[in-house]
Amino acid sequence: MIDPPFIDPSLAVRLCQGDRRALAQAITLVESTRADHRLAAEALIAALMPQTGRSIRIGISGVPGVGKSTFIETFGLHLIGRGHRIAVLAVDPSSQRTGGSILGDKTRMAELTRHPAAFIRPSPSGGTLGGVARRTREAMLLCEAAGHDVIIVETVGVGQSETAVADMVDLFMLLLLPGGGDELQGIKKGIVELADLIVVNKADGDLMAAARQAVADYRHALTLLRAGRAGWRVPVLSGSAITGQGIDAIWDEIAAFADAMRAGGHFEARRAEQARSWLWSEILGNLEAAFRSDPAVAADLSRDEAAVIAGRVAPPTAARALLARFLAPREMGSSEKKSQ
Amino acid sequence: MIDPPFIDPSLAVRLCQGDRRALAQAITLVESTRADHRLAAEALIAALMPQTGRSIRIGISGVPGVGKSTFIETFGLHLIGRGHRIAVLAVDPSSQRTGGSILGDKTRMAELTRHPAAFIRPSPSGGTLGGVARRTREAMLLCEAAGHDVIIVETVGVGQSETAVADMVDLFMLLLLPGGGDELQGIKKGIVELADLIVVNKADGDLMAAARQAVADYRHALTLLRAGRAGWRVPVLSGSAITGQGIDAIWDEIAAFADAMRAGGHFEARRAEQARSWLWSEILGNLEAAFRSDPAVAADLSRDEAAVIAGRVAPPTAARALLARFLAPREMGSSEKKSQ
Repeated sequence: MIDPPFIDPSLAVRLCQGDRRALAQAITLVESTRADHRLAAEALIAALMPQTGRSIRIGISGVPGVGKSTFIETFGLHLIGRGHRIAVLAVDPSSQRTGGSILGDKTRMAELTRHPAAFIRPSPSGGTLGGVARRTREAMLLCEAAGHDVIIVETVGVGQSETAVADMVDLFMLLLLPGGGDELQGIKKGIVELADLIVVNKADGDLMAAARQAVADYRHALTLLRAGRAGWRVPVLSGSAITGQGIDAIWDEIAAFADAMRAGGHFEARRAEQARSWLWSEILGNLEAAFRSDPAVAADLSRDEAAVIAGRVAPPTAARALLARFLAPREMGSSEKKSQ
Repeated sequence: MIDPPFIDPSLAVRLCQGDRRALAQAITLVESTRADHRLAAEALIAALMPQTGRSIRIGISGVPGVGKSTFIETFGLHLIGRGHRIAVLAVDPSSQRTGGSILGDKTRMAELTRHPAAFIRPSPSGGTLGGVARRTREAMLLCEAAGHDVIIVETVGVGQSETAVADMVDLFMLLLLPGGGDELQGIKKGIVELADLIVVNKADGDLMAAARQAVADYRHALTLLRAGRAGWRVPVLSGSAITGQGIDAIWDEIAAFADAMRAGGHFEARRAEQARSWLWSEILGNLEAAFRSDPAVAADLSRDEAAVIAGRVAPPTAARALLARFLAPREMGSSEKKSQ
């Protein structure tokens, strides 16, 4: 057993007072994979849980080039003007592998970064999507405890991270370019149907007409698809981070969405379901890790997996044999004797 | 340990000879949850594995009223006319719960049911989606060993079963009504983007014009979405189970799809990936079952899950505590002593 970790008791207090350095320190703790840091992070979050949840969590996705950071800067400053406190987190498991990191360089969202009512955090670099997602979920709780009432989770619309982000936010917003669908060639299948709100960005200058057409096209396309959630028809709006056009309407739609979901009891129900599925993804993820790292399993796993992939062995047969190896020590342990 | 099961050795032989009664018996064995039947089923499938895989596996989905069974009867008889042997399986976990069973009554597909070149099997009633899916995957293997070279897996487009079916077939076909999207109100979000081929059914009589319009609308909508797979643009066709119009073209598209996937090496790669993910769904499903049924876990699980759902406890904290209870006997077993 690991000794109970030392946590600076003032960290939680300073964080709740909105101290951005304390929030940054807490998120660093949450991102650490060291066992003692993990325990400290859990103790800190446990202490802060009563202060969490009072925010709207917004996922924002779109392919590189759609103008996410410029949009978020304009959008965030607009909300700060309305008296909100903004936190921007990023989910980008590719940040280390491909160097395609988002929120990596400080030049992005320069003005928002400097604003005292905003907190911006790059994606934890490297690690699995599951790991990045868990650390982002915990970072959201810390930001809420620090008094940020609008949490934006940014992701690049090219990988699996969109589903993970859509599962951890209240509303998932997809940014599109005025390009009649071509810009979607880079976006992953199924992401459009994750969206609760679609914004055709860069609706300014020469692109105004194209943006208007794209909005009409997507509105029509969405009528042919089973999109949105109970009691919500996915709005398609245009917006411009340059002129600010549409930013008001976008926030109004977000507020309308939150009201509609709360009215139907869907808002809290969805958060409860998200907490439950987070619990089970933690449990199953750790079970899988224990299974994969079990010496008795690891010895045969790759061989059996190869036989299954080659079609020589049926999956249920291989699964049962591997599970018997994994669970055998349990039976030995519980029965206090060897079973064979 | 359970005694090695007795299997009638002639069962596998008769099944490979295309004996429909033997195939029906084998599927019944596969559907049984009795431990000795399970072992017998795995032994049978292991013996038949070399005879499996030589088919095209087609998923067909659509809401009740779209005309699935009439379409499958016309489609199946057409393929039999081309020298194929057809098997039709159903995935419908709701069959017992809601009584909305598909392929339940024998009056459906009356002619196809009687045809010696066709084998039709209703959905195993009751059970979880995971259970139904596994039994259907095993039934597909048995049908292939029995010489059926076109396997149709039918499902109702209203639940989670579509994703499960799309994951077990080579091509996923969605049947729609000529209704400009209204008919989709019953279909589950995301299913349209699962489709490799879309067929607007009932393109006959008064609905001809509406069908033509629906085909045009869906073709346009799909250009705005990231649909289909690498090297494949999802075709939208019209068809009539009554007049037979379009049935030829539909099969031609399926053949073109299979050729395109094989040419790119995607066909076998997808089957290999399906086998791998089937293996892991078996492993994780059984790990979760062992976890849930563990006495030390069950004692606290519902309480801890409630605390997580209520937002009182963070999911990672609850997960770690529960996992420690589950894995403790392992450590006891491996170290041959109590750890606390």
